[in-house]
Amino acid sequence: MPTLAQVVNVLETLYPLRYAESWDAPGLIVGDPSASVTRIAFAADPTAAVIDTAIEHGADVLVTHHPLLFRSVHQVSGLGTRGDIVRKLYQSGCALWVGHTNADAAYRGVGQAAADLFGLVDQHPLVPIHDDEAAAAGHEVGLGRVGRLERPMTFAAFAQRVAGVLPHTELGVQACGPLDQMVETVAVLPGSGDSLFDEVRASGADVYVTSDLRHHPATDAIEQARYEAGLRAQGIAVGHGDDRIRPLMINTPHSAIESLWFRYAVDDVPAAVAQATGTRPESEWLRMSTDPWTLRL
Amino acid sequence: MPTLAQVVNVLETLYPLRYAESWDAPGLIVGDPSASVTRIAFAADPTAAVIDTAIEHGADVLVTHHPLLFRSVHQVSGLGTRGDIVRKLYQSGCALWVGHTNADAAYRGVGQAAADLFGLVDQHPLVPIHDDEAAAAGHEVGLGRVGRLERPMTFAAFAQRVAGVLPHTELGVQACGPLDQMVETVAVLPGSGDSLFDEVRASGADVYVTSDLRHHPATDAIEQARYEAGLRAQGIAVGHGDDRIRPLMINTPHSAIESLWFRYAVDDVPAAVAQATGTRPESEWLRMSTDPWTLRL
Amino acid sequence: MPTLAQVVNVLETLYPLRYAESWDAPGLIVGDPSASVTRIAFAADPTAAVIDTAIEHGADVLVTHHPLLFRSVHQVSGLGTRGDIVRKLYQSGCALWVGHTNADAAYRGVGQAAADLFGLVDQHPLVPIHDDEAAAAGHEVGLGRVGRLERPMTFAAFAQRVAGVLPHTELGVQACGPLDQMVETVAVLPGSGDSLFDEVRASGADVYVTSDLRHHPATDAIEQARYEAGLRAQGIAVGHGDDRIRPLMINTPHSAIESLWFRYAVDDVPAAVAQATGTRPESEWLRMSTDPWTLRL
Amino acid sequence: MPTLAQVVNVLETLYPLRYAESWDAPGLIVGDPSASVTRIAFAADPTAAVIDTAIEHGADVLVTHHPLLFRSVHQVSGLGTRGDIVRKLYQSGCALWVGHTNADAAYRGVGQAAADLFGLVDQHPLVPIHDDEAAAAGHEVGLGRVGRLERPMTFAAFAQRVAGVLPHTELGVQACGPLDQMVETVAVLPGSGDSLFDEVRASGADVYVTSDLRHHPATDAIEQARYEAGLRAQGIAVGHGDDRIRPLMINTPHSAIESLWFRYAVDDVPAAVAQATGTRPESEWLRMSTDPWTLRL
Amino acid sequence: MPTLAQVVNVLETLYPLRYAESWDAPGLIVGDPSASVTRIAFAADPTAAVIDTAIEHGADVLVTHHPLLFRSVHQVSGLGTRGDIVRKLYQSGCALWVGHTNADAAYRGVGQAAADLFGLVDQHPLVPIHDDEAAAAGHEVGLGRVGRLERPMTFAAFAQRVAGVLPHTELGVQACGPLDQMVETVAVLPGSGDSLFDEVRASGADVYVTSDLRHHPATDAIEQARYEAGLRAQGIAVGHGDDRIRPLMINTPHSAIESLWFRYAVDDVPAAVAQATGTRPESEWLRMSTDPWTLRL
Amino acid sequence: MPTLAQVVNVLETLYPLRYAESWDAPGLIVGDPSASVTRIAFAADPTAAVIDTAIEHGADVLVTHHPLLFRSVHQVSGLGTRGDIVRKLYQSGCALWVGHTNADAAYRGVGQAAADLFGLVDQHPLVPIHDDEAAAAGHEVGLGRVGRLERPMTFAAFAQRVAGVLPHTELGVQACGPLDQMVETVAVLPGSGDSLFDEVRASGADVYVTSDLRHHPATDAIEQARYEAGLRAQGIAVGHGDDRIRPLMINTPHSAIESLWFRYAVDDVPAAVAQATGTRPESEWLRMSTDPWTLRL
Repeated sequence: MPTLAQVVNVLETLYPLRYAESWDAPGLIVGDPSASVTRIAFAADPTAAVIDTAIEHGADVLVTHHPLLFRSVHQVSGLGTRGDIVRKLYQSGCALWVGHTNADAAYRGVGQAAADLFGLVDQHPLVPIHDDEAAAAGHEVGLGRVGRLERPMTFAAFAQRVAGVLPHTELGVQACGPLDQMVETVAVLPGSGDSLFDEVRASGADVYVTSDLRHHPATDAIEQARYEAGLRAQGIAVGHGDDRIRPLMINTPHSAIESLWFRYAVDDVPAAVAQATGTRPESEWLRMSTDPWTLRL
Repeated sequence: MPTLAQVVNVLETLYPLRYAESWDAPGLIVGDPSASVTRIAFAADPTAAVIDTAIEHGADVLVTHHPLLFRSVHQVSGLGTRGDIVRKLYQSGCALWVGHTNADAAYRGVGQAAADLFGLVDQHPLVPIHDDEAAAAGHEVGLGRVGRLERPMTFAAFAQRVAGVLPHTELGVQACGPLDQMVETVAVLPGSGDSLFDEVRASGADVYVTSDLRHHPATDAIEQARYEAGLRAQGIAVGHGDDRIRPLMINTPHSAIESLWFRYAVDDVPAAVAQATGTRPESEWLRMSTDPWTLRL
Repeated sequence: MPTLAQVVNVLETLYPLRYAESWDAPGLIVGDPSASVTRIAFAADPTAAVIDTAIEHGADVLVTHHPLLFRSVHQVSGLGTRGDIVRKLYQSGCALWVGHTNADAAYRGVGQAAADLFGLVDQHPLVPIHDDEAAAAGHEVGLGRVGRLERPMTFAAFAQRVAGVLPHTELGVQACGPLDQMVETVAVLPGSGDSLFDEVRASGADVYVTSDLRHHPATDAIEQARYEAGLRAQGIAVGHGDDRIRPLMINTPHSAIESLWFRYAVDDVPAAVAQATGTRPESEWLRMSTDPWTLRL
Repeated sequence: MPTLAQVVNVLETLYPLRYAESWDAPGLIVGDPSASVTRIAFAADPTAAVIDTAIEHGADVLVTHHPLLFRSVHQVSGLGTRGDIVRKLYQSGCALWVGHTNADAAYRGVGQAAADLFGLVDQHPLVPIHDDEAAAAGHEVGLGRVGRLERPMTFAAFAQRVAGVLPHTELGVQACGPLDQMVETVAVLPGSGDSLFDEVRASGADVYVTSDLRHHPATDAIEQARYEAGLRAQGIAVGHGDDRIRPLMINTPHSAIESLWFRYAVDDVPAAVAQATGTRPESEWLRMSTDPWTLRL
Repeated sequence: MPTLAQVVNVLETLYPLRYAESWDAPGLIVGDPSASVTRIAFAADPTAAVIDTAIEHGADVLVTHHPLLFRSVHQVSGLGTRGDIVRKLYQSGCALWVGHTNADAAYRGVGQAAADLFGLVDQHPLVPIHDDEAAAAGHEVGLGRVGRLERPMTFAAFAQRVAGVLPHTELGVQACGPLDQMVETVAVLPGSGDSLFDEVRASGADVYVTSDLRHHPATDAIEQARYEAGLRAQGIAVGHGDDRIRPLMINTPHSAIESLWFRYAVDDVPAAVAQATGTRPESEWLRMSTDPWTLRL
Repeated sequence: MPTLAQVVNVLETLYPLRYAESWDAPGLIVGDPSASVTRIAFAADPTAAVIDTAIEHGADVLVTHHPLLFRSVHQVSGLGTRGDIVRKLYQSGCALWVGHTNADAAYRGVGQAAADLFGLVDQHPLVPIHDDEAAAAGHEVGLGRVGRLERPMTFAAFAQRVAGVLPHTELGVQACGPLDQMVETVAVLPGSGDSLFDEVRASGADVYVTSDLRHHPATDAIEQARYEAGLRAQGIAVGHGDDRIRPLMINTPHSAIESLWFRYAVDDVPAAVAQATGTRPESEWLRMSTDPWTLRL
């Protein structure tokens, strides 16, 4: 039976920690490297309910996308929910491994899974990372994905496609821009995408699909996009491309879009463990919604 | 006829600039102080469409809640939408005055308007500001409001009340927490409220009504709230109050909740100008939605 | 039987967290607040050997002076000794509470214990903290202690006294300055004292007892002290007091001097728990040396 | 007729924004890119009098060397002179384009114009910028210029030459150093040059011509220069070159020396517009002094 | 005969080091405190020529206004002029004491000396310092002085008065503003005054007399002053006072204005030494110009 | 006879200032470059006793390893011991040159001298510096040295060897780790080595010899080393090499280990001066202990 140390080694070959952003600290968060692993569970958020379910289902490792200790801590006591989760994990012998920005950027990672499912072809990373190993394997890695729809469609039709791929949440999907404008190139960044507007504009994408778009960044972006489209219509070159407004925006529920990754990982990880160790662990995606919203009016 | 200088003086008596947060720069943004004022328009966001409408309606001053130049600029040229707005305003003789965090904190300002309309009594600021003049007038000023519902109601009923007060938007209103829990004390912070969870927890409020709540802060807050409620149910004192989960959360469209202020300002401002100068300017609230979202799925 | 939550409450009444330095994060580091406590162990450092011994002796809480997670962490996995200690503690049901700079400054805390045992009378804190509750109880609290020997003695005799009080270590005790100089006032700072020379000089102390004195700070201090004493001998007023060299210095093993606190705490804590809850837990001081040095040549 | 957008394009080909220092923000400050341009005015400072004159003379674009909004602003209202200038420019349809450190560094820019007029040959930039396009055109670009006088002359004679080239101002020209010392290599930095003494010393220049030299930097520089010359006279190698004092200094009126650029720009810009668009705009240098000093005693 | 330690004590009673700005480090820079003092010299700048003269004249202490080591140093070797000055001073037994911002702010210090000589009455500090000892003696201390001319005069006449008081320099005195405007209140800040415009404006002074005014700060200040005067003339209240332009500016040679202090100090210091020690040292003001400029064109 | 300028030139050829750490400022600290040099003294610390001895022995230059003005100063007066040392040096005509981190990193510098004397072969720098000149001469330069013992020995035997090489001090030598473990590769960093544990771990060294190791860094390092060795013994790859604990640590008296350099320098420097100038100065190593400790108990 593979040890946790071996499984971690496999996970960090698929989703190398060197891809992580400098402010991020993914990897093994809780667990004894000499423990043995027969079952791996996957979930977007390490909430108390997710932890309880993973333990109840007999998982030896839980792989989540969101960090348990994103802000570093001086204590892991039961005065807070994070310390209590550490306690439950250690007492039940379940490890926690986090694939955050390293998984975002990886081959068959979070960005690629979403882009594939939204139908993008000719994909490239939005923010490429140079990595010799990935290049040798013919993979382009990095944050986000930019690609092309096989054929242009209206913005409304594309928004409908995105909503159809995502699991149902109370928050739902919002679209910003003229619904009948034709769109073809798309930038996708699963997770909070407020801070990457410059990269999206530079990519020339017609649409930007991301999450957690707040009022001000979204309003600023669409106002400037409309203005620049107007200038281009007068023949004054600012921004990119023809005189359509770009980028239009689609706001998605944060965990819902990121959890598309598990469609790949739930098979990729046990297969890679099998190849490395000769034993394929059981594998399960905990599909419970971890979206905080319980009602929409 | 009052001059712009006189109208600014009145606005800054009602909504004093000294209330503004240190990072904020509200006040007169565009305008010639010697111009005369016969008509004042009010709107949440200084978008291009709002500016065009104000000019078309003959406004001499436009009062907005959101800043035009929140990030300071080295140029106001027509290479960007903000510079083009400066051009339009100067060429049409319409001034722009911004009441941002100073209006949030003021008597009959943004926070108080929302709290009043949601039915809160016994109100106090969430983050009080000490101000001698306000104290002399018997007003408590500061960011956000905490108050009590006249009688407890279920969380679902209160969420329904909030949604009923707000104008319709595509984004809608979201609620987080058990819908049948009874709630009584409420904290309200119109605008992005992610960063004030500590103050809300310290206030002991049952519900927090604000905007732009992103996945991680909202999830973190409800997870910790649920955990602490569990500890209190075992008799271990952490957090505030009895063993109910608190604060529950209501996420509202950013401009929609802030625009409740104009229900007061559209009368308060011309009345105060009349008192100061003997002439009451015309006044109009431009109710057009400036929410960026055009579709929800 | 008292719960961990009750014991923590007692510990933080004796050694309040509000006394801690701003860069410090003492308190409950590992543990379930609803667990019950029958046995408390005390030790200077949370080393692997100390943890194993505490668990083997059946401790429900281990109180250490040095932090486990002094630098905050993003993970507590078994890839490092600290994560493995968290695992062992949770799996064996032993909590960890740290009394660091809060215990240094407290009444009957680390500073006072050492100063008492070195024979100092008329004690005051070296760096006083104003605290209303302590003042109401008639206690002066703060970092380090300055006091007077009942009668002057030679520096050599006082150094001998200090060495006699401390447990044996390989590192031993070092003295800096003329051995036959008479000394009377003494400043004591258990732990690394390099950074408090200014306060010691301002106190006018004849001797400074602390730990981890490195070559440069110690050399700089004694050189300047000798020079100033020479100026004072010529009638030029610099520094403090008469024309003796001051402060002389005594360097002590870091954990050895700090562990003097446990002479008090091993009784004070169970007595206070008994008073608060009616039940006196068992109590034990794990006297094993945690000094890293195994040989001296 | 060329549009403003076309004229800006020409200006930023002659004086590329990529040459600007990182703290600088030159380019189009005020103006509608779709406006048409028939007349361009040039002046050193965008003072109120300069703006009024440019408008009165019918300029469609005013090119200044000094920025209008050097410190970025949150408002452009008529409560300050800068906002009032924005108003006048937009109301009269006159754009403002600033060529600041980008123009300093450019081919036939501010530095080169002054160096040419002071008679320097074999010029190189004092602080070179690597730029592929400039290199391809055979131009060396960068801040300041260092060159050689065709033949050595006394410092007094060279100072006289500098003063003769500059327009009259009340401040006048000051020289520091032995007047009869022979000088041959000269560094020129139009504008405040206090902060570039290290580069000037490294260039080995005999004289440094710049502006706004304050008492302390000038005194420190000449004292060190005299001292090093004395050491070199004893055969001790410090500083550069033979045993003459270097650099001597010439302090010039800030705007006066910078305005020498317009001798080139007043022709270069309309010629380049003509070449790009087929139409040569009218062009005028507003020679009014913008030096603040009105009297010298 | 008094020792250097005693003389330093007197100097720091007259010009207390606690008045110094936080970035400044005046006081005893070079000297043996046990040396005896028979002769004190005074000069504005510790240039090599000043040091040589002081030594040649047999001074035991040189008091300068400008620091020798304003930027702190890691070496005082003869590779630089400052180290060579340290060497000369120690080898000839001449101490150096610096009275910089402490002397600016003191009673009968640099600011007061200049203000007295320019004829100001009803003086107060421009930037007051609260000091219990000064208050007990009835002295108002602080940086700069604001006062009133006994009777209003034209700006030209006042500028003439300032120039008449100052020793001749090549740089001369410059005035900015309408020469026939009547002025009455005056702010004086000997030394570089660029950074105190806000305080001067707040003082409502008609004229600001200082040094080292560079093109941009001076131009910005006069432009804004002219604009605000225009608004006040229209009845719009911005800035201070009636509708005259304020502050006008007078730029003076830096060392020349500061050296006015020595008119007081050359007597005040020996008198205070005599009072403290019974012996009056000889005293001399080295009036040589230390202005760097040797020619004006 | 060589001048000081020539001797400094030789010293900075042997121990180039460009090797110094960015926070360090070695080189000529006190001295007149035109003075002549007949005798050079060497010592670890520029204490008052060392200075007096150097002067008494007629030294024209004193070379020390530790800086006199490590923290930069605004004064060199006799109010402090450092200023008094400057005075004595200038009055007796003795220069001071400091070889600190530049000498640590140099060929036949501080690191290499200690490593040679401890018997290390196949040496490389612990933190290499790339330097073209050193490379051309076939020298590897940089901070610290890592090398191999000719044959493995027990940790106790190696510690004994280190202690035998060093001069006697009261502080003595301490060793941390199992005394009978065999060791072969050794990292040496003369001086305070707390901050370079990461580099030592990366080097895979069995032992780390340095100074001023404080309780916490030493304890943390040995605890983690023991834990990782345990994991490796279970076949889990963390850290470097086989399953022995590494690095063990040897703590040495700071000045004692650094003064090993003088065994080389006392001959290298006069030889190089002779080669450069034709005259070999006298040379002496002042072997007096500058360790502050006078007693150990």
